[in-house]
Amino acid sequence: MKELCINETIVKEITGGITAPKGFSATGAHIGLKKKKKDLAIIKSELPATASGVFTTNLVKAAPVIWNQQVVNNKIKGIVVNSGNANACTGELGFRHTEIMAQTLAECINASKEEIIVSSTGVIGVHLPIDKIVEGIKTTITSLETTREAAKRAAEGIITTDTYTKEISVEVEIDGKTITIAGMAKGSGMIHPNMATMLSFVTTDADISKEMLDKVLKDSVEDTYNMISVDGDTSTNDMVIVLANGIAKNTSITEENENYFRFKTALDYVNRYLAKQIINDGEGVTKVLEVVVKGASTKEDARKIAKSIICSNLVKTAFFGEDANWGRILCAAGYSGAKFNPEKTSISFSSLGGEILLFTNGEPIKFDEDKALQILKERKIQIIISLQDGNEQATSWGCDLSYEYVKINGEYRT
Amino acid sequence: MKELCINETIVKEITGGITAPKGFSATGAHIGLKKKKKDLAIIKSELPATASGVFTTNLVKAAPVIWNQQVVNNKIKGIVVNSGNANACTGELGFRHTEIMAQTLAECINASKEEIIVSSTGVIGVHLPIDKIVEGIKTTITSLETTREAAKRAAEGIITTDTYTKEISVEVEIDGKTITIAGMAKGSGMIHPNMATMLSFVTTDADISKEMLDKVLKDSVEDTYNMISVDGDTSTNDMVIVLANGIAKNTSITEENENYFRFKTALDYVNRYLAKQIINDGEGVTKVLEVVVKGASTKEDARKIAKSIICSNLVKTAFFGEDANWGRILCAAGYSGAKFNPEKTSISFSSLGGEILLFTNGEPIKFDEDKALQILKERKIQIIISLQDGNEQATSWGCDLSYEYVKINGEYRT
Repeated sequence: MKELCINETIVKEITGGITAPKGFSATGAHIGLKKKKKDLAIIKSELPATASGVFTTNLVKAAPVIWNQQVVNNKIKGIVVNSGNANACTGELGFRHTEIMAQTLAECINASKEEIIVSSTGVIGVHLPIDKIVEGIKTTITSLETTREAAKRAAEGIITTDTYTKEISVEVEIDGKTITIAGMAKGSGMIHPNMATMLSFVTTDADISKEMLDKVLKDSVEDTYNMISVDGDTSTNDMVIVLANGIAKNTSITEENENYFRFKTALDYVNRYLAKQIINDGEGVTKVLEVVVKGASTKEDARKIAKSIICSNLVKTAFFGEDANWGRILCAAGYSGAKFNPEKTSISFSSLGGEILLFTNGEPIKFDEDKALQILKERKIQIIISLQDGNEQATSWGCDLSYEYVKINGEYRT
Repeated sequence: MKELCINETIVKEITGGITAPKGFSATGAHIGLKKKKKDLAIIKSELPATASGVFTTNLVKAAPVIWNQQVVNNKIKGIVVNSGNANACTGELGFRHTEIMAQTLAECINASKEEIIVSSTGVIGVHLPIDKIVEGIKTTITSLETTREAAKRAAEGIITTDTYTKEISVEVEIDGKTITIAGMAKGSGMIHPNMATMLSFVTTDADISKEMLDKVLKDSVEDTYNMISVDGDTSTNDMVIVLANGIAKNTSITEENENYFRFKTALDYVNRYLAKQIINDGEGVTKVLEVVVKGASTKEDARKIAKSIICSNLVKTAFFGEDANWGRILCAAGYSGAKFNPEKTSISFSSLGGEILLFTNGEPIKFDEDKALQILKERKIQIIISLQDGNEQATSWGCDLSYEYVKINGEYRT
């Protein structure tokens, strides 16, 4: 258990998964889409929950994404997720299958299909074995529970090639009430099962208005999931969903007051943790990179530079090769579209192996290659870009580009 | 020798390099920046030539790029290029070094330094050994010639990790006069010597106004160099320069008339050839990919989709693995920012091994995996995206992402 104090909001990590907040039950099971691993997850909210979602910006959207965009403004009673098949690029029949998944869960938990969020991940361009799924939902629903184990089963049901489940649960005080926020995610890893799908489901017993939930999720995603990159490909299925059922009975958050920011701090904590876990679990990853851009004139410029660096293949391969190639970093900053002055820019690396300055005020520094190698040998490396242009900053997270990445992605489908 | 008829303009490929157009001499030599290979190239125009340049859009610009942006609107008498050191991120001293290079060549050919284009490529962040370069220019200038061999020497002087020189020379008739256009380029290969620098120098004896030369170069680059991608990183040193000395004595091209389009057809031919050679010579490349987007509603949408697909790591690794993973192609089209209707889209592959349709009208097609493999086994593969949205089209060129790419880029600097 860890305690973290950010902006004076105390966020306390507790044991548990998405069933930790009051009023949520869950389960997961193997229903035959994959060979052996779990491939179905169900979440149920005791009370109809205020919901918010952020979906892929890809023009090509999988059927469940289109469905969720229609229903997410309703109160939501349940979520059903299958892994092993993304139900993407599957035409009209694919959309019909999503509707059947919603309808099936709705019947099981006494809801209408418009109160159900649906999600799919896995191979694309293949129709779902819908009979198996309908049967699977009906069988699995009997194991819905509020236990720690049930949350774990759900977290297992959504992963594809992830090597471990990604779960977190935190508590934060909001006007004297303890509210809980929990989340589970599946990563795109370095593997990107056909489409690099990232799914994240967050539950909370906080009472928050639809308008504020939409705002807080959108803002939080901007600094968490949107700041990670494995390879820059945006999936047809990506989504982040938050359900808030209000059972904690805090004064409802309806404006951007102190309580809103306390909630946001805790939600950021959950989302940042899950986002970083996605990077950490990438197969083929040998280095986990954190790019910190400081002293930018605008937040947007800081974000652009941080993302451009973390997305650069040349930067990624240099870190794989443990090569202190700061020129590629400056180059990636240069084509990011952000405004900054290279003449005032500094670049340094930091890790458990030490810290080293490589470039400052527009001039290269003669540095100790051995010391640089000590730093670059570590698995977690921080790249710090200081712009001296203002006070804004942003952080992005990513990984190196390894032989293993190419191998896995070259052979995925066959 | 090949003859190609495009839009009724006959472009004839002839033997020769950048000294093929009348009034241009050149040379190249080893002056000690690299261990053994040539590292200096000089081009001289007998008459002051109208010049045009397209430069990297990277905010971080190497010293010679900044120099050229200042002098390119003058008439130009010479070009000096060194390879082995990019003179990028080298501060004020770096800019002073560029000026010295210009001054040195100017003195040798009786010009002023403002009539000299300078270019550098190689490692970044290291100051030039300027004394060696000054001495080298003075020695090398004595070998300036208009011969085929001299052009070859120049083409050798600009390459870094390219495995062969890239040269072309063509003739086209413009109102009864034969005009010649020639070019040489160095690629970014898969190697990207620190920064993926692409340099291209084009000479012509055509008579064309500065205004029209700027326009024709800008338009030509859009459909040639700007449509190739190795890994999406934009160098600090990239440039394309055209010199036109008017010696062919055609009626000067001063407006977008038929002669302008004949000239553009020939220039496109030269630029497209050089651009494709850059892809073909990428080390680590096992597949050369051509993406043809047809039936787009706007040219810009067609370009966006073609470039998004050719830049996708997931698409690139799939081709490396000879995997008919059309979903990744549709996905990359989807996040390109272009407007199209996935429900009307078709995707097919074509190569010497045959042709196969994989996705049509929004639905996957059950295809013969063996047949797909036959097609994907070839080195050159065409990916055809048909949108049925209009009549615009665009083509992009790129390559797969291989183990070799990671290896080379992980170990470049060390």
